[in-house]
Amino acid sequence: MKNKSQHFSHLDKQGKASMVDVSSKPDQVRRATATGRLVCQAATIRLLRQKALKKGDALTVAQIAGIQAAKQCATLIPLCHPLPLDHVRVEFTVKAGHIAITATTATTGKTGVEMEALTAVSAAALTLYDMMKAVDKTMRIEAVKVASKTKETTHQH
Amino acid sequence: MKNKSQHFSHLDKQGKASMVDVSSKPDQVRRATATGRLVCQAATIRLLRQKALKKGDALTVAQIAGIQAAKQCATLIPLCHPLPLDHVRVEFTVKAGHIAITATTATTGKTGVEMEALTAVSAAALTLYDMMKAVDKTMRIEAVKVASKTKETTHQH
Amino acid sequence: MKNKSQHFSHLDKQGKASMVDVSSKPDQVRRATATGRLVCQAATIRLLRQKALKKGDALTVAQIAGIQAAKQCATLIPLCHPLPLDHVRVEFTVKAGHIAITATTATTGKTGVEMEALTAVSAAALTLYDMMKAVDKTMRIEAVKVASKTKETTHQH
Amino acid sequence: MKNKSQHFSHLDKQGKASMVDVSSKPDQVRRATATGRLVCQAATIRLLRQKALKKGDALTVAQIAGIQAAKQCATLIPLCHPLPLDHVRVEFTVKAGHIAITATTATTGKTGVEMEALTAVSAAALTLYDMMKAVDKTMRIEAVKVASKTKETTHQH
Amino acid sequence: MKNKSQHFSHLDKQGKASMVDVSSKPDQVRRATATGRLVCQAATIRLLRQKALKKGDALTVAQIAGIQAAKQCATLIPLCHPLPLDHVRVEFTVKAGHIAITATTATTGKTGVEMEALTAVSAAALTLYDMMKAVDKTMRIEAVKVASKTKETTHQH
Amino acid sequence: MKNKSQHFSHLDKQGKASMVDVSSKPDQVRRATATGRLVCQAATIRLLRQKALKKGDALTVAQIAGIQAAKQCATLIPLCHPLPLDHVRVEFTVKAGHIAITATTATTGKTGVEMEALTAVSAAALTLYDMMKAVDKTMRIEAVKVASKTKETTHQH
Repeated sequence: MKNKSQHFSHLDKQGKASMVDVSSKPDQVRRATATGRLVCQAATIRLLRQKALKKGDALTVAQIAGIQAAKQCATLIPLCHPLPLDHVRVEFTVKAGHIAITATTATTGKTGVEMEALTAVSAAALTLYDMMKAVDKTMRIEAVKVASKTKETTHQH
Repeated sequence: MKNKSQHFSHLDKQGKASMVDVSSKPDQVRRATATGRLVCQAATIRLLRQKALKKGDALTVAQIAGIQAAKQCATLIPLCHPLPLDHVRVEFTVKAGHIAITATTATTGKTGVEMEALTAVSAAALTLYDMMKAVDKTMRIEAVKVASKTKETTHQH
Repeated sequence: MKNKSQHFSHLDKQGKASMVDVSSKPDQVRRATATGRLVCQAATIRLLRQKALKKGDALTVAQIAGIQAAKQCATLIPLCHPLPLDHVRVEFTVKAGHIAITATTATTGKTGVEMEALTAVSAAALTLYDMMKAVDKTMRIEAVKVASKTKETTHQH
Repeated sequence: MKNKSQHFSHLDKQGKASMVDVSSKPDQVRRATATGRLVCQAATIRLLRQKALKKGDALTVAQIAGIQAAKQCATLIPLCHPLPLDHVRVEFTVKAGHIAITATTATTGKTGVEMEALTAVSAAALTLYDMMKAVDKTMRIEAVKVASKTKETTHQH
Repeated sequence: MKNKSQHFSHLDKQGKASMVDVSSKPDQVRRATATGRLVCQAATIRLLRQKALKKGDALTVAQIAGIQAAKQCATLIPLCHPLPLDHVRVEFTVKAGHIAITATTATTGKTGVEMEALTAVSAAALTLYDMMKAVDKTMRIEAVKVASKTKETTHQH
Repeated sequence: MKNKSQHFSHLDKQGKASMVDVSSKPDQVRRATATGRLVCQAATIRLLRQKALKKGDALTVAQIAGIQAAKQCATLIPLCHPLPLDHVRVEFTVKAGHIAITATTATTGKTGVEMEALTAVSAAALTLYDMMKAVDKTMRIEAVKVASKTKETTHQH
């Protein structure tokens, strides 16, 4: 954030929105991990654990929602590039007062996949919210952010 | 959260996921407001304000993303009911260290629209993240929650 | 277009985009018809007629594309209200130098369906373009507009 | 199938495809149940049962896929009417040589929901196929059909 | 199906669902063919043939539905990888008591396309069902399965 | 258009629709530009300019709609190949009696992107129509066509 050459991605010199041209970028294996959490009451967590021990359904539904949302990222985020995904994983850690969510995504392509990972975390959190809202009016989604992002050259023969 | 009759919505007696039956519920005008914020560096906000003053684009793109996502809510959240929306509004307040997001939704239908409002807030926040991620690696989405929810009987003649 | 009270739909007093609130509007049967045409070379029309006489496929594919696009209208046009459709029809008249397209839509709802009809015409025209572009580089879509729009009170007992 | 007045739905007098006009039909609570089965090897069922006892994931993923597909019915089946759904339920019975699938759907609207139920069964079957295809090359989807269909007048005041 | 190392695709060691990581797999031309049939009354087939001879519409609508559904496969089947498709073909053989459906798909990518072919067959069958359900209450979808699956190394320079 | 070998793309030898097989084509950087215009009253343009000077919203909403529609091209146009997009840009020139629209698209793939560019122009025009229809009943979309189309060999190492 130091000088005038700073600019937002997706805004051109005239400040107009566009999906930036990545055609000259090489195909690389690009990975990203995003995290976030759904904060809720301890009683809600206990109820989830009981259900989870019996059926595990609430977490599985949220897991699927996260994976599906990652695939829909370019539909949801207007200036994201549509791209094939090589991998999506959504995982939960159930804590005393919140559910921690981690999403990992990978593509072989010309642009990164952190928005896909963030979208997966958000959709998983929203789905948990939807499934638990009948018993807890205090929930909130917190700390949705990128944890890591890497790229590596592909070696195909 | 007081007794055994507590249960999660969308899980039946056997703990199986389903989209609950609302066919016996009356059509009512149902409204919801959700809020959240994208926390970022002060320098990012300054850059946004400069752009905003000139073009307003970043916020408008996020606004459209929020509105479009509200319509896609039932596609993203597996156990949400698909329903027509009478109204979606997404608004921003640009603060020194974050952008506050408010989404308001309304339907005339058999079930509430707070998930639509929460989805709009999340998509708007993700879109802002996407547009500003080139200049700020510290951003995170915080405090996404329902602010209010109402229903009223319709009077159609 | 005479005075200051004129305003665009979907822009509020501050000029911000929103999906306007129609919750206080009555459910009415609303119909719309839109028209347009794909202008092409006479030789392309002859080829289409030969195919049409044998198989009819090109026009049927475009017809389906138009119907499907009408259903996707609120996904494509950001500030359109999502609504159930009671009826969609797409028809073609093959002329010497163009294909005339007419789309008719109906809903029982709180807002009109002319955008759905226009979207159906556009998607049908684009589909014909796609199917005939290998033989004709001169095609263009012309005169896409609303032909009529009505609403009538429903009488349900 | 007795006389000349017989006709396919969605084909008009000229044999052209259209989404038929249901605007004059009353809103009624319409329900449908469809069934089908995924036939597989006994060893595959044993493996599923082991997983199911531990985690239940494969069936839950298929259940969510079925529910989500029901909502997408009008996108998949060109001449289906888009309509809000009041209820979707997908259930499985794991047998020795197959998994039986039952889907139930309901709407308050102008047209039936058996295609939504059939679509839910098909998507659930395809999802089970996808999750078990690494261990069983013999699977096939059989007997997808409508089991029942009802409608009843709504009483809203 | 012989030993403990057997596992379902899309379930990790803990039995959790994920979209498996294919980033280290080579891009190959991958093809698949799936088949299925819609079983119906002889009178329905006669009616279809009459229509088919005149207009061909019912089969063309189903053909388009199958092609479109193949493209939506990763949206419908939660753990399928989204991927570009190089080819989709849907064909019908009208028999005395059923309509046989064959779908062929191809991609240049890191994972197979048999789910896309199966999805195309299912959507085509459902669409035929939808178009003929007014005249035949006995129809059922049978024998949806993979007929063949191949991959070959690409040679691009 | 000179001889019998002429044929429509997407129709095979039997005249049946299919998504043609491009698996043997090389990946190339393919670009296309399409243009069109929304013709409206001079007073509408003046109103747009006033709004545009203040907020720029109407054009930005249409710009986003065009970009999003380009990504949905293969969903809208039945026989288009789904493919990742490297770039989408939508631009407007506001004239006295119309708004000129230009869309540019690029992919690295096996087939061209002129349908994506045409779809972007159409969706942008429809969105402007939607936002201005309250003040102008005379609007029509004209001259939607391909302006240019190129391909170049990629050089990746």
